[in-house]
Amino acid sequence: MGFVTTRKVRFEHCDPAGIVFYPRYFEMLNACIEDWFEDRLGHSFGAIHVEGGHAVPTARCEVRFTAPSRIGDPLALTLRARRLGRSSLDLSIDVASGAEPRLHADFTLVHVSQSSGRAVAWPEPLRAAIIRELEEEAPHGT
Amino acid sequence: MGFVTTRKVRFEHCDPAGIVFYPRYFEMLNACIEDWFEDRLGHSFGAIHVEGGHAVPTARCEVRFTAPSRIGDPLALTLRARRLGRSSLDLSIDVASGAEPRLHADFTLVHVSQSSGRAVAWPEPLRAAIIRELEEEAPHGT
Amino acid sequence: MGFVTTRKVRFEHCDPAGIVFYPRYFEMLNACIEDWFEDRLGHSFGAIHVEGGHAVPTARCEVRFTAPSRIGDPLALTLRARRLGRSSLDLSIDVASGAEPRLHADFTLVHVSQSSGRAVAWPEPLRAAIIRELEEEAPHGT
Amino acid sequence: MGFVTTRKVRFEHCDPAGIVFYPRYFEMLNACIEDWFEDRLGHSFGAIHVEGGHAVPTARCEVRFTAPSRIGDPLALTLRARRLGRSSLDLSIDVASGAEPRLHADFTLVHVSQSSGRAVAWPEPLRAAIIRELEEEAPHGT
Repeated sequence: MGFVTTRKVRFEHCDPAGIVFYPRYFEMLNACIEDWFEDRLGHSFGAIHVEGGHAVPTARCEVRFTAPSRIGDPLALTLRARRLGRSSLDLSIDVASGAEPRLHADFTLVHVSQSSGRAVAWPEPLRAAIIRELEEEAPHGT
Repeated sequence: MGFVTTRKVRFEHCDPAGIVFYPRYFEMLNACIEDWFEDRLGHSFGAIHVEGGHAVPTARCEVRFTAPSRIGDPLALTLRARRLGRSSLDLSIDVASGAEPRLHADFTLVHVSQSSGRAVAWPEPLRAAIIRELEEEAPHGT
Repeated sequence: MGFVTTRKVRFEHCDPAGIVFYPRYFEMLNACIEDWFEDRLGHSFGAIHVEGGHAVPTARCEVRFTAPSRIGDPLALTLRARRLGRSSLDLSIDVASGAEPRLHADFTLVHVSQSSGRAVAWPEPLRAAIIRELEEEAPHGT
Repeated sequence: MGFVTTRKVRFEHCDPAGIVFYPRYFEMLNACIEDWFEDRLGHSFGAIHVEGGHAVPTARCEVRFTAPSRIGDPLALTLRARRLGRSSLDLSIDVASGAEPRLHADFTLVHVSQSSGRAVAWPEPLRAAIIRELEEEAPHGT
């Protein structure tokens, strides 16, 4: 379950200690969110920002780093939608290399107008697409 | 109180919405921590990593973004030490532009050996320097 | 002579070989150009891009790297204006640590309209400011 | 002909003018070179740097930017080996989106020892692999 993208740790991601410099993880995490919007929700960041005049800034993030990543490591990023608000969205991303977890991240995004900077409700097609993702994550109980 | 560094928001930090792309904040936050280690604790990241064979990776961070920053905004980053463990350190950084808060970040760093990847106790001079910083932050008694 | 800014090589700039990862130099070079526009020409990138609707993209750059830079190295970046065209500008930046050169960069920038993407002549006050800079660099011969 | 990798222009690559911020191109160019070393020469940057104690820093680069790239643009990067020296290598990378060229880059890399910082001859298997690439690029004459 979840939306999975893969990345390989590159030279450019690593610091003098030979491990991923953690700000580089945030670029990977953001790219994963960007891909999810385009591939699963059907709304690219280009369409939202450039044509739509909106933005989806991060209001909160919390990340726990459990093991370091080294150059050449293959990484799998698994995104799951968690909770939908009027203009907000909670999601999580787990990053692992093979069976070994590397980090767990929780994000809250907000849908805002670029001109006013104010939160605005998710437009209906985007809301419906997010709900489909949430339902896919939900436990399919008895 | 706290250790203050300043930055100006540059072109390179901003995204197509004209505001700081949040992974760039993590580079600023890391640079603030790096300056604090060198200027206030007397141990540069160069000495810790290159000569010392240790590292101080981030084990956890939580950031709340309260208002966007735009190109040209002057930013003040205020770092405060919060809690010292055997091999860990909690600290917070508040970023503001003038009177307006932009974000609040909480970090847990861990002192590790680069070769084993294991947590190792802070060496005594570094521990003593961190304690001095904690005492400066502490409320001065009754 | 020239416009000088200083930087210290940080952890974030360095790669697993312990030296500056060269794409990070381009951020430093761009920041130097941005400072020069604001401090010496009196036109900030914010004013040019956000209010003015123009941009000054790089049309060409050529960089020769003569020695590596390591964490903690103090760097001085010296920018000199070289040649002014109707809508273009050639400039060079020398980066050194103390007496040791680290790189020499030549840039050609172009002043364009953001909406059309086309080159447009430098506006008069900006042109006059660039000419003052060029005259300062010129050899004051007999 | 040449070694082709593809990239999509992302939010993280773009500046407030909505186009790729050129230092981000250098990360793409470097990743293309890194992939070529691993996929075509059979020597990963991880093996060269971490196990081998060598590095392949850039001694010179020259880039001509012919058209801007915008968010969502698909990019193809085509790398061609050009000239092999005892410890150096010239290569070029063309970046295009569909039929439209975006930039042309020429690089000179040098194979050095990390400990001494000095140029050292390419080891035989790497030299042989580069020669195979050069022959593939060569015009197959009469």
